[in-house]
Amino acid sequence: MNPFLDLLLVLATLVYSYLEAFVKLFIPVKRKSVSGELVLITGAGHGVGRATAFEFAKRQSRLVLWDINKVKKDIGDVSILVNNAGVITAADLLSTQDHQIERMFEVNILAHFWTTRAFLPTMMKNNYGHIVTVASAAGHFVTSFMVAYCSSKFAAVGFHKALTEELSTLGKDGIKTTCLCPVFINTGFVKNPSTRLGKILEIEEVVEALMEGILTNQKMVFVPSHLSFALFSEMLFPERTLAVLKKLTDVKFDAVVGQRSTQ
Amino acid sequence: MNPFLDLLLVLATLVYSYLEAFVKLFIPVKRKSVSGELVLITGAGHGVGRATAFEFAKRQSRLVLWDINKVKKDIGDVSILVNNAGVITAADLLSTQDHQIERMFEVNILAHFWTTRAFLPTMMKNNYGHIVTVASAAGHFVTSFMVAYCSSKFAAVGFHKALTEELSTLGKDGIKTTCLCPVFINTGFVKNPSTRLGKILEIEEVVEALMEGILTNQKMVFVPSHLSFALFSEMLFPERTLAVLKKLTDVKFDAVVGQRSTQ
Repeated sequence: MNPFLDLLLVLATLVYSYLEAFVKLFIPVKRKSVSGELVLITGAGHGVGRATAFEFAKRQSRLVLWDINKVKKDIGDVSILVNNAGVITAADLLSTQDHQIERMFEVNILAHFWTTRAFLPTMMKNNYGHIVTVASAAGHFVTSFMVAYCSSKFAAVGFHKALTEELSTLGKDGIKTTCLCPVFINTGFVKNPSTRLGKILEIEEVVEALMEGILTNQKMVFVPSHLSFALFSEMLFPERTLAVLKKLTDVKFDAVVGQRSTQ
Repeated sequence: MNPFLDLLLVLATLVYSYLEAFVKLFIPVKRKSVSGELVLITGAGHGVGRATAFEFAKRQSRLVLWDINKVKKDIGDVSILVNNAGVITAADLLSTQDHQIERMFEVNILAHFWTTRAFLPTMMKNNYGHIVTVASAAGHFVTSFMVAYCSSKFAAVGFHKALTEELSTLGKDGIKTTCLCPVFINTGFVKNPSTRLGKILEIEEVVEALMEGILTNQKMVFVPSHLSFALFSEMLFPERTLAVLKKLTDVKFDAVVGQRSTQ
């Protein structure tokens, strides 16, 4: 517990980490195989969940697909399980009915809690698995008129970080975690979103980033990836500068209208 | 929409903000008066809520105090209202009963949603008020074995940030917001907490920082205040270095045991 030795240890780790990161730049990234692996996807009937199911099906995973909507049967040789996880309803703090805020939390975080709790004991016993938490850029950066949504997505990010920390403390290094944080996706969840930061994401590019993140065991997947720099600048710049930057990025949408149904 | 002008604007704001912050170092901070103001405190029967009630009573505010426990009558000339806001139960992901996780969210964030929603319309109409969200250092930094707690506190921080952003967008600059983020407080919520980062906080010092934050309209109140640097270092350092730093800070507690009742 010598402060000097502590400092030395921190500096040594710091240098080692940077060197390692530099060396890794020249080594091809290894992707793990998910062939034959059991993959459970909640919300698999639409949007990102559905497209992700296709990706795992292509890679010969065994799939268990959950959704409140009937899952389309054209995904391939999959076992299909439909349950009543909840209803996604977008709600803003002032204009909501009494139970919509609770439902937002139920869908965005509590359902994920319950699912994780059901499968974690087996994963822990085998020290094997991968838990993907679908959050949002709104779990790091707030947007007006989406108070309940942002809050529930902050909760999802916190869940992922705390779970990751706990698994590390318990030495369960075989259980990997990934948190997906995309900006607006064109799924009809918000109407006519637009931002100067870049075009609105299509489902396909989000799923591509997610699959790459899962197969290479990335902990935090921002889509687009430069969002992590924005997070850093948020710590660095004074509030007034951030306000100007925010105004310049010009995030806009007409209304929160609930999720687009699958065609 | 000229990128060069945009950059110039950002840089000018940056320089202005730093200059302003420098000048403010030499100007005494102004504290607002809360005499005669109506102050609603949830969880006023114990811990930080109770001590905060005393502080406002000293400053001649009109108090409305809510708690599930009976509020002690020795606070002074106050109107007392007791409701059933919920029960604080600490829960970890693996060892909880079925509804404890929901209850954690109910107490740490949903009750605050409901309360805010009840009073926000009047505040908006008058463009006047101050909303204090009690979060935690655990809303920024995760700790093992407190997955549900961390997640719900992340939600509280997200709520505060999104609400602040929305009020700013709506031009309601008369409504101030403050988010309280202390590390472990000696209220009996966790048993025998200890960390090398500094001593465990006593209720009094947390309330002192909170009152200063409210009276000077600070948006984020970290206790101890150097926590904001820790948050910054989390963005700056590689994961392995952070793991070493975390090990050195040595956060420990025996068990999460629920909240200490008032004597």
